[in-house]
Amino acid sequence: MEINQSRKRIYLDQAAATPLWPEVVALFTEKLSDVYGNASAIHDEGRVAANLLRAARQEVATNLGLRPQQLVFTSGGTESNNLALVGLVEKLKNTGRPYESMEILATPIEHPSIINTLNYLERLGVKIVWLAVDSVGQIKLGDLRLKISDRSILLTTSYVNSEIGTIAATSRLARILEKERKSKEKIWFHLDAAQAPLWLPCDLSRLKVDLLTLDAGKFGGPKGVGVLAWRGEVPVASLLQGGGQENGLRPGTENVLGALCLARALTIAQTGYENRAEKVSKLRDYFWQQVKVSGLPVQLNGDLGEGRVANNLNFSLLNYDTEYCVVYLDKLGVAASTKSACAGVGSGISQVVSYISEGDLVRSRSTLRFTLGEEISFTDIDYTVESLKKFVTLMSQTT
Amino acid sequence: MEINQSRKRIYLDQAAATPLWPEVVALFTEKLSDVYGNASAIHDEGRVAANLLRAARQEVATNLGLRPQQLVFTSGGTESNNLALVGLVEKLKNTGRPYESMEILATPIEHPSIINTLNYLERLGVKIVWLAVDSVGQIKLGDLRLKISDRSILLTTSYVNSEIGTIAATSRLARILEKERKSKEKIWFHLDAAQAPLWLPCDLSRLKVDLLTLDAGKFGGPKGVGVLAWRGEVPVASLLQGGGQENGLRPGTENVLGALCLARALTIAQTGYENRAEKVSKLRDYFWQQVKVSGLPVQLNGDLGEGRVANNLNFSLLNYDTEYCVVYLDKLGVAASTKSACAGVGSGISQVVSYISEGDLVRSRSTLRFTLGEEISFTDIDYTVESLKKFVTLMSQTT
Repeated sequence: MEINQSRKRIYLDQAAATPLWPEVVALFTEKLSDVYGNASAIHDEGRVAANLLRAARQEVATNLGLRPQQLVFTSGGTESNNLALVGLVEKLKNTGRPYESMEILATPIEHPSIINTLNYLERLGVKIVWLAVDSVGQIKLGDLRLKISDRSILLTTSYVNSEIGTIAATSRLARILEKERKSKEKIWFHLDAAQAPLWLPCDLSRLKVDLLTLDAGKFGGPKGVGVLAWRGEVPVASLLQGGGQENGLRPGTENVLGALCLARALTIAQTGYENRAEKVSKLRDYFWQQVKVSGLPVQLNGDLGEGRVANNLNFSLLNYDTEYCVVYLDKLGVAASTKSACAGVGSGISQVVSYISEGDLVRSRSTLRFTLGEEISFTDIDYTVESLKKFVTLMSQTT
Repeated sequence: MEINQSRKRIYLDQAAATPLWPEVVALFTEKLSDVYGNASAIHDEGRVAANLLRAARQEVATNLGLRPQQLVFTSGGTESNNLALVGLVEKLKNTGRPYESMEILATPIEHPSIINTLNYLERLGVKIVWLAVDSVGQIKLGDLRLKISDRSILLTTSYVNSEIGTIAATSRLARILEKERKSKEKIWFHLDAAQAPLWLPCDLSRLKVDLLTLDAGKFGGPKGVGVLAWRGEVPVASLLQGGGQENGLRPGTENVLGALCLARALTIAQTGYENRAEKVSKLRDYFWQQVKVSGLPVQLNGDLGEGRVANNLNFSLLNYDTEYCVVYLDKLGVAASTKSACAGVGSGISQVVSYISEGDLVRSRSTLRFTLGEEISFTDIDYTVESLKKFVTLMSQTT
């Protein structure tokens, strides 16, 4: 098998990590040596930092349709998800409400930073009410209606499922939460939007959600910085103890450069997401078309059309070892994945595909996830499909 | 009062935040656009990131005299301190030990990220045993001996007090913990070394401590990245829930660039810290000498000589409004502070100076903290002392 080392890489793992926007690299480089002051200090160096932090917060707030005080900067999506879930529970706990009186509605196909946080809360005594999802990963609305109780405090789900790209029906879910609630207390609605900003609107009013998680490293910003944003009053208690930074919700010397670059990346991501999505969904549809006509033994995981994020293609290469396939593709210059990088390597089946396929082992242990960026061409797709065919041919020869 | 706008700034607030090393800026800039892969992914982009992360971890471990698996990267000093204290308590709790059976030994003059975390643990049921400190902020050894009990699980203190620069007598403290323990369980020794790497050795074996906190933003690295390191086996449980990154101790996509730059900054800081400390302590001693001979109504806070970190000068400008003094100095081009930036602005007295002065209000509400860097000159010091004299003169005229 010929390996073309000189060929440019085809990076189809944007859901795991995105390259930085050139504008963000330029901004980072420009500010890196100048902006070192502590944003809580009262001298000029501190003020420069504080002003940039304020500007960053305003820029993020504008993108999300919020006021600047309705968000905190965190160290990334995982921390934001922890803060949303644990922070809300602890805030309610602080008002005297016992863990045992709280129920959280969630799906079993969320990211590990949600699933494992829910498991943690369950150990504290909070009841996790698992919602049924349909064959493409959408929450079954009837099941949601049925499971809302007077103890429900929160619905958490991903805006875009990180493995199969299914887009949550946020307005419909929000309407049900409002209409079917059984107590006078509202049911909070948290959306993990880590995979969304490049492809979908993130205005909280438009989405009708209460809490939103962002991670800069997934939309062309730097790693190690995220956001938790909310509508209305502060819904969470701080997870960390320390100084009074971020209105007491997130202590620690502020990562001003990170916040600034997150803000810039978010603006770029949200500006023209429609055109980007339209362009990339054509590539993605072409990709799936070519895979199907190639005669490979595949089965799509997730939705087609409007219910799927523009840049995601996930299918099972039935009865093939797709961990090995990813390694093989990598050698040919194509970066892909089997599932979420946070789910770990070699940890077996895709839990997401297992749930939507009702436990189909053949499908759930042979997943391939391709997540595209704007820079991908039709030729790149052709090359990738050819590489997949070569893999299948090679496997047939060796067995 | 003439304000010389063209004069270069004199930055004397290194304890709040340090400028980046030029080498770190160069490293950051070099890698910024290239290293974007998710270090948990199994393709080339992921491997590049994973290899750099591994190198960074090894570099930090070498500096601390540890194995690479004896540290985790965090989002900064505050998170590291939270992880050390809460993580240790939760790990013991997970073995079936109730909160009420645990006692933590600590001083009341620690950083807010320690004090507020201890207050949090106290609300959970852990007993916080406050140790007496002497007039320069050293733990009274007799009091420590007296307060060690069969329930003691941890002593936490700062290597360098962030306000008054007092250096903890780590070996002596460690010896007492070992000698006086009342049960077969060890008493862990946590050192918040945020203020140390530029001036003092950070090798854990040499220090005889078990857990060490670092924050890159305090020794010439970027903000938003820190370390918690330990000797022996993993002593803490994770605070966040999510993916299996950092051996399951700190989930979230790894901030590879941050880790890399922290490692480089630590190596630079620890290489030649003796010469740096010798050089800067001369400046600092000259500073204090000039302040005293100037006839200003001052009182030193903290130790002199070997018990004080090389770059810290903290004194009370008795009966003057030092918040205003910091603002005035800033206008003249000198960046200083009254206390820790994390203690917040306008929050009144210095708790640290209040404790060491047995509640002397005049001293504790008139503190000035100057923390120097290598780039400071004797001329800068002269200018700063002149500026202080101008402030006092101005205040005398207006009252």
